[in-house]
Amino acid sequence: MPVRTATATWEGALQGGSGTMTVGSGAFTVPFSVGTRFGDEAGTNPEELIGAAYAGCYSMALAAQLGQAGYQPERIRTTARVRIQQVEGGFAIDRIELETEAKVPNIDEAQFREIAERTKLWCPVGGALASVKEIVLTARLVD
Amino acid sequence: MPVRTATATWEGALQGGSGTMTVGSGAFTVPFSVGTRFGDEAGTNPEELIGAAYAGCYSMALAAQLGQAGYQPERIRTTARVRIQQVEGGFAIDRIELETEAKVPNIDEAQFREIAERTKLWCPVGGALASVKEIVLTARLVD
Repeated sequence: MPVRTATATWEGALQGGSGTMTVGSGAFTVPFSVGTRFGDEAGTNPEELIGAAYAGCYSMALAAQLGQAGYQPERIRTTARVRIQQVEGGFAIDRIELETEAKVPNIDEAQFREIAERTKLWCPVGGALASVKEIVLTARLVD
Repeated sequence: MPVRTATATWEGALQGGSGTMTVGSGAFTVPFSVGTRFGDEAGTNPEELIGAAYAGCYSMALAAQLGQAGYQPERIRTTARVRIQQVEGGFAIDRIELETEAKVPNIDEAQFREIAERTKLWCPVGGALASVKEIVLTARLVD
């Protein structure tokens, strides 16, 4: 099974320093700083990478779970919102909201919601993030 | 405090389908599929995004912790290796290796290692990933 690699570099002290995050596939190298992470400066941050990983993993996993239940999804779109909060002694990612919309012919709402809910922690990224205090899912069928 | 957003879309069933992951800042939109995730096809996957987020968060957090202890880091470089394994009933991210190299004037090896070790779960992404079965750190001072 695969082992995936990524590298980050930080130059300098926390304040005034800056870094880059890059993935082993070469798909992207992106800069970040205190301003792009904790402030309003334009740019990326580790939290939105966690969000992308979870939204991607969840969407793929929901396709898998729907398929196992005999349904053929046409499209699944998931948004993740990752909150970082100041806590005693530092910062914590304490809440993640997932909002998914799926086009799935011939499924009823109740069964869809049941499958969507159990996919939240079944997906490998969700399992890895199980320590996050709140992970909240909203799932909706769309045409 | 910030809430960061990302979105993923999956089109079709698991096998034969494909998706994209995109971050709210607009820093990247990347495609993925079963082949780029579980196979050897060129491309990205949620696991390397988790790796980039953790490597970035850890590097920044280590700069913060070193600064609090009175040291001024010049450069910190961290590689994350994220393993996904088949487990009963699905897949799990069961091991993450972090390997960090830091250039930090005037610190001794023992104190550096102690700070590096406690930063592993102190950093917000590390805290969020605390459910992962093994998180292993190797830390080294470099010139």
